[in-house]
Amino acid sequence: MKRSARLVAITNFFLENPRIHKNLPSFSEKYHAAKASISEDLDIIDQMFQAEGLGYLKRTAGSAGGVMYIPESTLENGVEFVKQLCERLKDPVRILPGGYLYMSDILGEPSTVREIGRVFASSFAKLDIDVVVTVATKGIPLAYAVASFLNVPVVIVRRDPKVTEGSSVSINYVSGSSRKIQTMVLPKRSLEEGANVCIIDDFMKAGGTINGMVSLLAEFNANVKAIGVLAEADDEEEERVVEDYTSLIKISNVDLKEKLISVQRGNFVQKS
Amino acid sequence: MKRSARLVAITNFFLENPRIHKNLPSFSEKYHAAKASISEDLDIIDQMFQAEGLGYLKRTAGSAGGVMYIPESTLENGVEFVKQLCERLKDPVRILPGGYLYMSDILGEPSTVREIGRVFASSFAKLDIDVVVTVATKGIPLAYAVASFLNVPVVIVRRDPKVTEGSSVSINYVSGSSRKIQTMVLPKRSLEEGANVCIIDDFMKAGGTINGMVSLLAEFNANVKAIGVLAEADDEEEERVVEDYTSLIKISNVDLKEKLISVQRGNFVQKS
Repeated sequence: MKRSARLVAITNFFLENPRIHKNLPSFSEKYHAAKASISEDLDIIDQMFQAEGLGYLKRTAGSAGGVMYIPESTLENGVEFVKQLCERLKDPVRILPGGYLYMSDILGEPSTVREIGRVFASSFAKLDIDVVVTVATKGIPLAYAVASFLNVPVVIVRRDPKVTEGSSVSINYVSGSSRKIQTMVLPKRSLEEGANVCIIDDFMKAGGTINGMVSLLAEFNANVKAIGVLAEADDEEEERVVEDYTSLIKISNVDLKEKLISVQRGNFVQKS
Repeated sequence: MKRSARLVAITNFFLENPRIHKNLPSFSEKYHAAKASISEDLDIIDQMFQAEGLGYLKRTAGSAGGVMYIPESTLENGVEFVKQLCERLKDPVRILPGGYLYMSDILGEPSTVREIGRVFASSFAKLDIDVVVTVATKGIPLAYAVASFLNVPVVIVRRDPKVTEGSSVSINYVSGSSRKIQTMVLPKRSLEEGANVCIIDDFMKAGGTINGMVSLLAEFNANVKAIGVLAEADDEEEERVVEDYTSLIKISNVDLKEKLISVQRGNFVQKS
């Protein structure tokens, strides 16, 4: 096979299989090429991935030598993407009764969701995450996007136990916004003891839901290594119960009367 | 830029942006290459995509000429993937009380979910789908996977209205399995009138939930062009209320006593 064809095939392999270790001989065999040629291919791909801000190839030398694609977007790319997202969110037609913002259209775009996932995954790339945890419903697509770049599974916390998931652990928590006692459930077999976890959700106000997840995860002795929320909202009436988190955007004010929305970049730049 | 580097960059562009029309001059400009060179690059990429069963590049000639990547997995790839999925599902430890099967681990794997999406998207590639619709919770990751290959948005039907989504249309329907009257809600602004829709869900027994979605979508004058379910289950006690659907796997029997699970390939091969 010619180099040009090989480059297309190997590029595709890396993009579809991030963080999967592959040794050089397996590429040699598959594409009928000498190890030296494959090694040159990898140099070309690595350079281009870095130039395009897609991440890099992590090479390991020696007889067990191999290569792994680490997706890691540049901070500039992330900042530019978030800037555009903020612009879209400022549109006053998004204002809903009660001062909420309509975001379902944006969260319904697979390519936008994927970019959000890329920013979080880049930010959490070095944390050795084993599992991404989210809570039904809106955090789910974001959690899968993050997990696809980290090459780890997703576990979904539910608000109601389902018969199709077997025995489960549940906790009660106080929701920040409604002050109601709510329940959260995680099936016993969904998470191994002591896993390194990152929590992903779409929205955080006081942080009651995320705090509930942290408590539930403590029952599994999980290490919460990171908490990522797409949007955080300032709530002056209530103290935030979650301290250490990464947000992409910050909604500081929704003025129903003046039809003005204040949206800024979140804290992810400081966190990176 | 050298051809080798260009091939890596353009391959990445197509894989990240399926079904997006791009004209040749824009590639020429971005990569500082003659149109003839870019055209040759596209031939190489097209050949390799087809050889690897990833789809093809759709070229349009003329002054408005351009190119678009259509992801379309081969049926052989789909059949092989589903075969492996069936093997995994046959494991008797998956049996839960009530004869249900534990599938959350499989549905939690981003790469598996992506492959499921690829099979459905390939099967629905020619249907001119505008939107993928699913119902919370487990269908969500599958719906995003399908939508990412079709490059269309996802709309999520909920069982409870949310204040953050504005005014909505709701219907009541009778659930097949529990015979209870349930509610389904779709925000008014989430779907345009007359859209071509494909419904995606993880599981179908009698089909009550999917039938409910069809009724709800009728309120938006949507055309349901396809219905895709990951797993269908035979239910001898009840007649199926959904006739025309595509399933990847079929669970025909879960024998609690003998710890035997009968799982076969669904009807997607006949449907393709």
